[in-house]
Amino acid sequence: MATQTKPILHGYFRSSCSWRVRIAFALKGIEFDHLPVNLIKDGGQQLTDQYKALNPMQQVPAVQIDGITLSQSLAVIQYIEETRPGPRLLPADPKKRAQVRMISDLIASGIQPMQNLYVLQKIGAEKLQWGQHFIQRGFEALEPILKETASKYCVGDEISMADICLVPQVYNAERFKVDVDQFPTIKRLNQTLMKVDAFKLSHPSCQPDTPADIRT
Amino acid sequence: MATQTKPILHGYFRSSCSWRVRIAFALKGIEFDHLPVNLIKDGGQQLTDQYKALNPMQQVPAVQIDGITLSQSLAVIQYIEETRPGPRLLPADPKKRAQVRMISDLIASGIQPMQNLYVLQKIGAEKLQWGQHFIQRGFEALEPILKETASKYCVGDEISMADICLVPQVYNAERFKVDVDQFPTIKRLNQTLMKVDAFKLSHPSCQPDTPADIRT
Repeated sequence: MATQTKPILHGYFRSSCSWRVRIAFALKGIEFDHLPVNLIKDGGQQLTDQYKALNPMQQVPAVQIDGITLSQSLAVIQYIEETRPGPRLLPADPKKRAQVRMISDLIASGIQPMQNLYVLQKIGAEKLQWGQHFIQRGFEALEPILKETASKYCVGDEISMADICLVPQVYNAERFKVDVDQFPTIKRLNQTLMKVDAFKLSHPSCQPDTPADIRT
Repeated sequence: MATQTKPILHGYFRSSCSWRVRIAFALKGIEFDHLPVNLIKDGGQQLTDQYKALNPMQQVPAVQIDGITLSQSLAVIQYIEETRPGPRLLPADPKKRAQVRMISDLIASGIQPMQNLYVLQKIGAEKLQWGQHFIQRGFEALEPILKETASKYCVGDEISMADICLVPQVYNAERFKVDVDQFPTIKRLNQTLMKVDAFKLSHPSCQPDTPADIRT
């Protein structure tokens, strides 16, 4: 096993997709090296040729692990799930696994892409309303689904990839001034999860590349 | 096992995400009932309360299977992969599985959401250029990745979920008038895959709900 070399996470403190990977690493107890990619500075460090070779989509995260380079956070999370010991990130039961993936994809394909930096740059002046609209719409769909699947966490009583996707999306909802009080299940799950160390320690407010003025 | 009842696919002939599920069912040899949801007629049948109960995101596909209702095509595909016999839709090797998921998610989160009907309706008059831009950008990233991972198919020599995502996305690229000749690996893979029965029989041009004037 090529697990002796620590994985390298190329990420950005405020990127919700980078945060997903940080949570997964923390839950599994995997040590990693963090190489910050500042999405704003110098017009965006993700746009350099050097970074483009790592992730041709020029987005974060990209993860170097076991001799391969992976982009797409859910692919990374499921790779470490399939190759590393530690708490399960997907339930054992196939139906519950499917629900975890459905919730994860609703967020990763149905909500997050609309408030991706690159898309917001294309939208221009109306980006706040645009992002707000799609998060609101996504949460209106997510709330009744979670009402069915959730117990202590998004699907049953085990933390899963769905929770890993939910918390960073709620953080983005707050940034886009979506009133999360409208969604009691989402709100309750987020509050529960934010008490868990893996979610707290990986929070955008306390990463190596978090600017001093917003660090807590 | 509750596999005696046929799954029900609520889909639309031209929806690329519905097509993904049709390909997966065909590859696995799973019979299913098709309940068409016309995204255009009556202002969009996905907007009815009846359909919203199946998929609160009011998008296709939704699949009723084994007593649960799943939306999000990749969750459906991985559920049938984990519960049904037949050819593997993800490779056995974890690194290759990760590459399959990376390519699938690049398409499902990085390209397709931008040309989703609901998003295009929000964009309005410039929807052709908008869709074109994001498909072009996505294919520019996908081409070098596939150049590394592909052999006969997207990842190695086995058809996988990555191929299931690629072919409907190429179909959309053509609809949006993206010149696929720019991307020789994508073009070659698509041509190879379009010779496979599961991809041909599930094509938008020959579904039960395909309008007569575009049926082939």
